[in-house]
Amino acid sequence: MSQPPLFKPDLKLDLVLERVVDAPRELLWTAYTKPEHVRQWFTPKPWIITDCEIDLRPGGLFRTRMQSPDGKQVNDRRCCYLDIVPNERLVWTDALLPGYRPSGDPLITAVVSFQPEGKATRYTATAIHRDEATRNNHEEMGFYDGWGTVLDQLAQYVKTI
Amino acid sequence: MSQPPLFKPDLKLDLVLERVVDAPRELLWTAYTKPEHVRQWFTPKPWIITDCEIDLRPGGLFRTRMQSPDGKQVNDRRCCYLDIVPNERLVWTDALLPGYRPSGDPLITAVVSFQPEGKATRYTATAIHRDEATRNNHEEMGFYDGWGTVLDQLAQYVKTI
Repeated sequence: MSQPPLFKPDLKLDLVLERVVDAPRELLWTAYTKPEHVRQWFTPKPWIITDCEIDLRPGGLFRTRMQSPDGKQVNDRRCCYLDIVPNERLVWTDALLPGYRPSGDPLITAVVSFQPEGKATRYTATAIHRDEATRNNHEEMGFYDGWGTVLDQLAQYVKTI
Repeated sequence: MSQPPLFKPDLKLDLVLERVVDAPRELLWTAYTKPEHVRQWFTPKPWIITDCEIDLRPGGLFRTRMQSPDGKQVNDRRCCYLDIVPNERLVWTDALLPGYRPSGDPLITAVVSFQPEGKATRYTATAIHRDEATRNNHEEMGFYDGWGTVLDQLAQYVKTI
């Protein structure tokens, strides 16, 4: 059963990217929740995703192993799904590992929501941080560029599936 | 719908307290999930709980403000519920605040399960840690004494409700 969302973005602590994407939300949901799709668009090119594992249930694993073009830099992220409302909302965090085990030094909880807008979808990605310093650092690291670029890639990719 | 649990205790990382309590699990569940009950038994006496807030849904607040008898020491813990299976399993963590916001320096995710055993209940509390150092420190801080004492208090308390 869909519950009202528990998070209200706090703009001092959170970062929000919102855009209308010209695709039905069911398609965006599929692209977000199947490893073979996620691998194609979820990191800004020319980085690539070499591994993706998805156990789509609360407490389940969301892993993406990202790699620079020369293979020298690797970002192997193991996150935990928290809230899953098909076609509507997906929430995961790096504050927990699968099975809800606490991790060290978390960056974010991510909330991605898909709302129908005619035949298109209003896409909202919210990055929730523990404090202002973490939020500001994430913004400086390039949150808007990074999430904006992968959203462009997602919008292009779903035209092919 | 009840899912199979995602956590398997890892004895290098986790602490487990298991005991049969002479009370039906529905009663233990009630005592664990209503603030007016939790206040009566959830901290080892002579400490008291001066405030308890419960928003019993995934992402909801589980707050307990504990206070020493002289009122000089206070432990105000704000945790986040993760998994709620009525009468069966309750999971919360201090790695997240309500609304799934990451917190700083988490200690545990707690999993409490209640399994019927005749008219009694097999009670299992598992404290899940991020690493061995945190686990060992928690054991030295008195996990078994603390959780054992509150379980004694719970068993006594439910006879009165």
